[in-house]
Amino acid sequence: MLEQLKQQVLEANLALPKHGLVVFTWGNVSALDRDSGLMVIKPSGVSYDVMQRDDMVVVNVATGEVVEGNKRPSSDTDTHRALYQAWPEVGSIVHTHSRHATIWAQSGRDIPAWGTTHADDFYGAIPCTRQMTPEEIQTRYEWETGQVIIETFQQREIDPLAVPAVLVNSHGPFCWGKTADEAVHSAVVLEEVAYMGIFSQQLTANLPAIQQPLLDNHYLRKHGTNAWYGQKK
Amino acid sequence: MLEQLKQQVLEANLALPKHGLVVFTWGNVSALDRDSGLMVIKPSGVSYDVMQRDDMVVVNVATGEVVEGNKRPSSDTDTHRALYQAWPEVGSIVHTHSRHATIWAQSGRDIPAWGTTHADDFYGAIPCTRQMTPEEIQTRYEWETGQVIIETFQQREIDPLAVPAVLVNSHGPFCWGKTADEAVHSAVVLEEVAYMGIFSQQLTANLPAIQQPLLDNHYLRKHGTNAWYGQKK
Amino acid sequence: MLEQLKQQVLEANLALPKHGLVVFTWGNVSALDRDSGLMVIKPSGVSYDVMQRDDMVVVNVATGEVVEGNKRPSSDTDTHRALYQAWPEVGSIVHTHSRHATIWAQSGRDIPAWGTTHADDFYGAIPCTRQMTPEEIQTRYEWETGQVIIETFQQREIDPLAVPAVLVNSHGPFCWGKTADEAVHSAVVLEEVAYMGIFSQQLTANLPAIQQPLLDNHYLRKHGTNAWYGQKK
Amino acid sequence: MLEQLKQQVLEANLALPKHGLVVFTWGNVSALDRDSGLMVIKPSGVSYDVMQRDDMVVVNVATGEVVEGNKRPSSDTDTHRALYQAWPEVGSIVHTHSRHATIWAQSGRDIPAWGTTHADDFYGAIPCTRQMTPEEIQTRYEWETGQVIIETFQQREIDPLAVPAVLVNSHGPFCWGKTADEAVHSAVVLEEVAYMGIFSQQLTANLPAIQQPLLDNHYLRKHGTNAWYGQKK
Repeated sequence: MLEQLKQQVLEANLALPKHGLVVFTWGNVSALDRDSGLMVIKPSGVSYDVMQRDDMVVVNVATGEVVEGNKRPSSDTDTHRALYQAWPEVGSIVHTHSRHATIWAQSGRDIPAWGTTHADDFYGAIPCTRQMTPEEIQTRYEWETGQVIIETFQQREIDPLAVPAVLVNSHGPFCWGKTADEAVHSAVVLEEVAYMGIFSQQLTANLPAIQQPLLDNHYLRKHGTNAWYGQKK
Repeated sequence: MLEQLKQQVLEANLALPKHGLVVFTWGNVSALDRDSGLMVIKPSGVSYDVMQRDDMVVVNVATGEVVEGNKRPSSDTDTHRALYQAWPEVGSIVHTHSRHATIWAQSGRDIPAWGTTHADDFYGAIPCTRQMTPEEIQTRYEWETGQVIIETFQQREIDPLAVPAVLVNSHGPFCWGKTADEAVHSAVVLEEVAYMGIFSQQLTANLPAIQQPLLDNHYLRKHGTNAWYGQKK
Repeated sequence: MLEQLKQQVLEANLALPKHGLVVFTWGNVSALDRDSGLMVIKPSGVSYDVMQRDDMVVVNVATGEVVEGNKRPSSDTDTHRALYQAWPEVGSIVHTHSRHATIWAQSGRDIPAWGTTHADDFYGAIPCTRQMTPEEIQTRYEWETGQVIIETFQQREIDPLAVPAVLVNSHGPFCWGKTADEAVHSAVVLEEVAYMGIFSQQLTANLPAIQQPLLDNHYLRKHGTNAWYGQKK
Repeated sequence: MLEQLKQQVLEANLALPKHGLVVFTWGNVSALDRDSGLMVIKPSGVSYDVMQRDDMVVVNVATGEVVEGNKRPSSDTDTHRALYQAWPEVGSIVHTHSRHATIWAQSGRDIPAWGTTHADDFYGAIPCTRQMTPEEIQTRYEWETGQVIIETFQQREIDPLAVPAVLVNSHGPFCWGKTADEAVHSAVVLEEVAYMGIFSQQLTANLPAIQQPLLDNHYLRKHGTNAWYGQKK
């Protein structure tokens, strides 16, 4: 069942340690087959060294039921489910504790759009959620983590495909995209801009965000309908 | 004698450079066979490149006597002995000078629980000991290093298995666990949270600790009696 | 056509990830055959893993026309063209988003000449351009990026071969040299001094620039007509 | 001539990139045969990738004359000569531009003894020299670099074997030891403590130096006549 998607999810999970984004098993990638309403996700707490395609777990997005697989799905499964339910264009989600994105999340701060590296892939600041309430934490924690992400994008009127990452307050980043490749790409770029941001604000206090025309130009050169970066597809 | 434990201790010692936690010979791991009261520990000042299982030294925890082995045990042996004597549930101890944990130790500061990466493995701040007195330093230094660690956990009423690491003031970290794998795990996570903490407090001055319900939830999800992280065992 | 130059440009592009200067495809190198007025440049958005000599694109510097190659040239091609037109001694140009040089660019600050590592290859501060105007950004962005670099060197009366790098404000570095090897060399040294500069100014507030005689001596020892560093050529 | 010493010097030079201390050719090691008054030193500007034993250059310490070798000796040769002439117990010298030691040198600051990592190998602060005068820079620069190092140790009454490293103001570190192994060891430890120091002083403003008894104990445990670290020799 969904063998091709399982292979993509496996490869995307293996890309996380390759890019230096995870320690031990601290990351997970899922991808969605929207036609069937099923997602494929990494098993919980399995070492990347031994992970196989058949370790991937198939989960019903609507119900949370495990449809196929011998292992427990990632403990963050319900966060992934919540985002897929809310955002119809998202096809893959990545969670890591990558060092510098996590630093911003722990600090409870958005990452401002401070340069073109950021603008190439994120159309504005990467938001940090509010803290969760004790009730949210103590009842359905992983599901409510998804809800507070969705709330953040709704209240601040951010398009999740234009800013494909969030910092969960006191926790760490979730990233996404239409495909697993795109979601991993977002996670890598997020870590770059998170690193750069820490030191940019040290060099220049109260550093203003990038000029709007430059943000527009860089984002649209890669993502607009008339994008002119890369090879024709 | 204790061949299996020697192998575990060898592998745990070799894991330290693999995880980037040691330079030269600046680290040591021991593990305890509590039934016999014997511990296996790395020899002093032997390069990781040439270290063999038979270089491991067997030491009587009660007396400090070398029971087996051609080499001198680690110069920190008496610190390990002190902790094993005081803490009946600890089965393995790791000492490193990993960069960022050592920075906190040199600075004489606890590492606050600032995020879920910390909460997943440490149930509260990682304490830094008081400075040792000239008498403690000049008489039985390594033994007294153990005593000041024990005093820190007693006076602050911290369970050493719930916070399996300490920063020895002006020196560096000691970590532990029930097994050598757990002790190395603690050392790796400590270095991650030490790194993140340095920059988290730069981004947000006077950053408060993680909310108590979030600390509870993350720690218990991995370590409580009803833990739901990972695969069933 | 220009097979030898293509090989040099390929190798120089591959040197960027080897030196840790690029993530994904975020870098490009070109080199110029000044006799024919043709430059060879990396294709846009092609992975370094699969890049071949025949992927290199030959572009007419005067007109921007693609003279040979199956792929689109780098999206930064017009910036390279502008610099070759303005600076007759430059034979190769490198663009990266290397972390620390980009931090200075995002912060809008010059990198002062703070030590002999800097002085060995850059005869004075590495300038950061002014911000571009909305008009410059919205019309011929990449061409105007070149123009604002040229303006910076003209207005501040800097010889581009004596200071073979610039920080484009809110964006990142461009570096150059007589050959592709020299241009890559400049990009590597720039990243070193950018890293060191961030922390040098933390250790000593208002750190003054290196003494003029020391700047003179180190720069001239490697680059003057009587240079005495390295082997005789 | 001095084939064994050449081999040691070659290996010590190759150890520098292995330990991440040099970029390109920015480092050099020499070692002394005190009986003959000859030193073996790295050639100037030769890549570590292709360096061979026979590239090493033999130089008369008293006169500076090249006694054997086809290549120019390191441009820092006269600094090495000056130190060997002044310090009879030193048998090997290392120069690098390692990132964090260079940051302290550029900032013109001593590295205080802030922890036991430092105390294990350096018996007190690692001094930074005064700035050189224009006359010193413009006449016999490399020789005078040695003189300002010697002056620093004399005026501050530091034993060069007890503190086997210096930071040359605005430039970078020189390290030494009785043997090439020891000199490289000093360079590695210096880089560690330089890194740690930058962040230690960020965590605790006005951080005092390590207590004297702890400095004594750690230094003497490895270096005193009754040292008890490592294996018996």
